[in-house]
Amino acid sequence: MQLLKDRIRKDGTVKAGNVLKVDSFLNHQIDVELLEEIGKEFARLFKGVRCTKILTIEASGIAVACVAARYFNNVPVVFAKKSQSINLEGDSYVTKIESFTHKRVYDVIVSKKYLSSDDHVIIIDDFLANGCALMGLADIVKSAGATIEGIGIVIEKGFQNGGQIIRDMGIPLHSLAIVKSMDDKTGTVTFMDEE
Amino acid sequence: MQLLKDRIRKDGTVKAGNVLKVDSFLNHQIDVELLEEIGKEFARLFKGVRCTKILTIEASGIAVACVAARYFNNVPVVFAKKSQSINLEGDSYVTKIESFTHKRVYDVIVSKKYLSSDDHVIIIDDFLANGCALMGLADIVKSAGATIEGIGIVIEKGFQNGGQIIRDMGIPLHSLAIVKSMDDKTGTVTFMDEE
Repeated sequence: MQLLKDRIRKDGTVKAGNVLKVDSFLNHQIDVELLEEIGKEFARLFKGVRCTKILTIEASGIAVACVAARYFNNVPVVFAKKSQSINLEGDSYVTKIESFTHKRVYDVIVSKKYLSSDDHVIIIDDFLANGCALMGLADIVKSAGATIEGIGIVIEKGFQNGGQIIRDMGIPLHSLAIVKSMDDKTGTVTFMDEE
Repeated sequence: MQLLKDRIRKDGTVKAGNVLKVDSFLNHQIDVELLEEIGKEFARLFKGVRCTKILTIEASGIAVACVAARYFNNVPVVFAKKSQSINLEGDSYVTKIESFTHKRVYDVIVSKKYLSSDDHVIIIDDFLANGCALMGLADIVKSAGATIEGIGIVIEKGFQNGGQIIRDMGIPLHSLAIVKSMDDKTGTVTFMDEE
């Protein structure tokens, strides 16, 4: 998605340790107009795919998923929660994921009320790096007996192995920008040609 | 907002300890169509108010704020983060808030890059109870030298004192549904008449 790649080049910053900061438009300050275009693009890529629910994970995935939902016939968005809350009932799907950003392991929880074997799920998230978050979400969908119809990612770090793992599982994966390499010395971001 | 009150009566559940669970449509599974109506109502209530930025706090506030932003000329949404992340630079506004839901104290952080003294801010969040989260966000806006133009809340617990504190500060506060009382034995929710 050229608009997104241009924006990453313009406003993204590369930090040591393969950190790509896009918090000026995606995951701290949010450019809602850009999210609209991202939502339209996901809808185009998943055209004809049955979708009864969009699944994402807090926090920044929520923005992408909720704005995209409008282009998926306003299906409900379910966001997985990263820690047990007294407002969640005990009857939940639980899995563990390791966060690249926060360097810690989370319990990730979805109430059994909001995913069932009838659901056809598209998972949407902002980043894909080592794939731990997505594997956790896929695990939850599987536990529910629901069908994963596909995964939509805003930015994939193509130099980490998460994308390959997901593709090898046979899950349709659309990443709108795939970073091939980054250089924190020069601030350069190179993208894969293919989307 | 009658649509919202009806939905709370229909799908909300009252739990012991003054917990109102609305996770079937607001803060775990999200009814995006309802959020659209909520966004329109905030825009109506804040009509004519100068707004350069919407400020909210992760996680469930993000959904409300991002969908509402469309009705505020697509101004950027900034969400305060609840813990230090390696993706945030050190140059941040920091305050502490106590979560009613999670029974713990959080550091709440907004990068200085995304709030400045030129900003006119409307704060949007899903719940208002004791007001700790809002006071923290207001504190951050004040630290930035920005102007708080108003606060929009989806559900206020009118039997807790947060709303009164905010109103006493002279900040325009619009809560779309104000719960007067709840009874976990009968499941009854009673609303204030005034919005």
